[in-house]
Amino acid sequence: MSQPSNRQFKLAHRPVGMVKRSDFDFVQAPVPQPGDGEVLIRNRYLSLDPAMRGWMNEGKSYIPPVAIGEVMRAGAAGEVVASNHPRFAVGDSVVGVLGVQDYAISNGKGLTKVDPKLAPLPVYLGTLGMPGMTAYFGILEVGELKSDDTVVVSGAAGAVGQVVGQIARIKGCRVVGIAGGADKCRYLTDELGFDAAIDYKSEDVKKALKQHCPKGIDVYFDNVGGEILDAALTQLAMHARIVICGAISQYNNTTAVKGPSNYLSLLVNRATMRGMVVFDYAARYGEAMAEMAGWMREGKLKTREDIVLGLETFPETLLKLFKGENTGKLVLKVE
Amino acid sequence: MSQPSNRQFKLAHRPVGMVKRSDFDFVQAPVPQPGDGEVLIRNRYLSLDPAMRGWMNEGKSYIPPVAIGEVMRAGAAGEVVASNHPRFAVGDSVVGVLGVQDYAISNGKGLTKVDPKLAPLPVYLGTLGMPGMTAYFGILEVGELKSDDTVVVSGAAGAVGQVVGQIARIKGCRVVGIAGGADKCRYLTDELGFDAAIDYKSEDVKKALKQHCPKGIDVYFDNVGGEILDAALTQLAMHARIVICGAISQYNNTTAVKGPSNYLSLLVNRATMRGMVVFDYAARYGEAMAEMAGWMREGKLKTREDIVLGLETFPETLLKLFKGENTGKLVLKVE
Repeated sequence: MSQPSNRQFKLAHRPVGMVKRSDFDFVQAPVPQPGDGEVLIRNRYLSLDPAMRGWMNEGKSYIPPVAIGEVMRAGAAGEVVASNHPRFAVGDSVVGVLGVQDYAISNGKGLTKVDPKLAPLPVYLGTLGMPGMTAYFGILEVGELKSDDTVVVSGAAGAVGQVVGQIARIKGCRVVGIAGGADKCRYLTDELGFDAAIDYKSEDVKKALKQHCPKGIDVYFDNVGGEILDAALTQLAMHARIVICGAISQYNNTTAVKGPSNYLSLLVNRATMRGMVVFDYAARYGEAMAEMAGWMREGKLKTREDIVLGLETFPETLLKLFKGENTGKLVLKVE
Repeated sequence: MSQPSNRQFKLAHRPVGMVKRSDFDFVQAPVPQPGDGEVLIRNRYLSLDPAMRGWMNEGKSYIPPVAIGEVMRAGAAGEVVASNHPRFAVGDSVVGVLGVQDYAISNGKGLTKVDPKLAPLPVYLGTLGMPGMTAYFGILEVGELKSDDTVVVSGAAGAVGQVVGQIARIKGCRVVGIAGGADKCRYLTDELGFDAAIDYKSEDVKKALKQHCPKGIDVYFDNVGGEILDAALTQLAMHARIVICGAISQYNNTTAVKGPSNYLSLLVNRATMRGMVVFDYAARYGEAMAEMAGWMREGKLKTREDIVLGLETFPETLLKLFKGENTGKLVLKVE
């Protein structure tokens, strides 16, 4: 081990409102040694995801919260540097939930070998990772996508949104993305082939949806909640499906979440709003990755990562998500 | 014609907030004469429904609003007193959308003959009418009811709610009703066989739901919206279904509808919220009526109407719905 120590971000307090550096303890621990059946992994890239904000809160959710004093939970990609596990050898590239730290110990559960020749490691945290899986099963299964649908996705330039829109395009749909800022909107239409993009920072979203979805919205894939969800509800087509994937606009609230005031549009339009958690589809990740990798090879599915350097920047880099400053999958390079 | 004139309530203004008498013109018109292919009906019972409040508002909904100056729309049951229509004879009992008036002209469209020997006329406005159809298709189709479900219904002592709960009991479910006041709650448990009833006027609904639904709520059938919908959202079981049938707590709002702040429970619990409009099932009303009439004969499905006398009381009687003063189907007897 050339590295003398293992830098770790541990949760120090449950954040109130926006996350800040003082919510964590940044500590140096000795590099751990793998026990029987364990591997030691050198993290190379950390996945920064909106869901991390929820993991910091007390209370029942789809997974337990990160405990106070525990290393902050994060998906990561890295290399095996020591192994007492029959399935993993030194030099293997792996992804798993490995935490915001330089080194992680794993018993192999939830640890997946990946091929860095097929795609760069950060892609396994994005389009070929949880965000990509979320997009794939969210739009195809939960959204019950049909080829003549008009699809709207919010957070469209984010890790999940960019994939949702491209899959819908591949399937023949009309796709409208909602994102913040002219650069992101240009990226959606010019690079990813979206039919239209709405800049929620400078446009009236409801009016723009009306203009770009003349037949109404058949599938609305929601990553943001708040006012944008409410605007989408006013423009539903009959039998519309709303996929509730996240609500990034609400995660740092210190007051109650803003419920969708226009939810009675579900009644008028016989529409469905359904929540999803990607872990439910774990048994089918392989199938999805194979199809997505195929689309990537054919040039139909593009992927973009927003890579920030330096483990020590973790708290500030995480905030980029909530400020809407990332385009594509936000990744922290551990160095 | 012994009646010298046709009393009518015409919409005079679009109500702001709670409906009041001055929102209508109460007029006397000559009794109309049926033209070719038309029938004249003497209305006997008018159906008073929460949906009527929505019909008075401007703007797009699932049916056009009642126009200013138009006779207020209402379902009704009555007798044919003159006919130039081959399908209807004088003396036939019929139900249809016949308006808040003594007499109505119909071309036969949407007019259905009913058998007053099988059930009293008011039952055709309730359990064997639109509310019963709403309950039947709402709980069985939209709610995807399964026999071991825990079912919660709000507005449980109302026209729709009482039928929803009883159908769920017939199907073997655990059924919890939410209603306002001890009398209604006693009616639900003692008369209709609900497993439990929650008095939202005197109990903490969230706590009571937790107590009465130890495995969580599998199907929540919502007639009321507002705080009660939000309480139900906190107690969902995995893969729960929420049927959005109405939101009577919000219909007279002068401010925005209260959206469900806890809607992210849909995500955590992979749950579904779906809106319904009963008209979509029109082709299958016959099938539902046959099954419901069978349950009524067997004593498994009880029905209760709250009958108020006097067409002239229409505006005040309608308010009983929004004040939660009716138990069972609210019907206005035309006399």
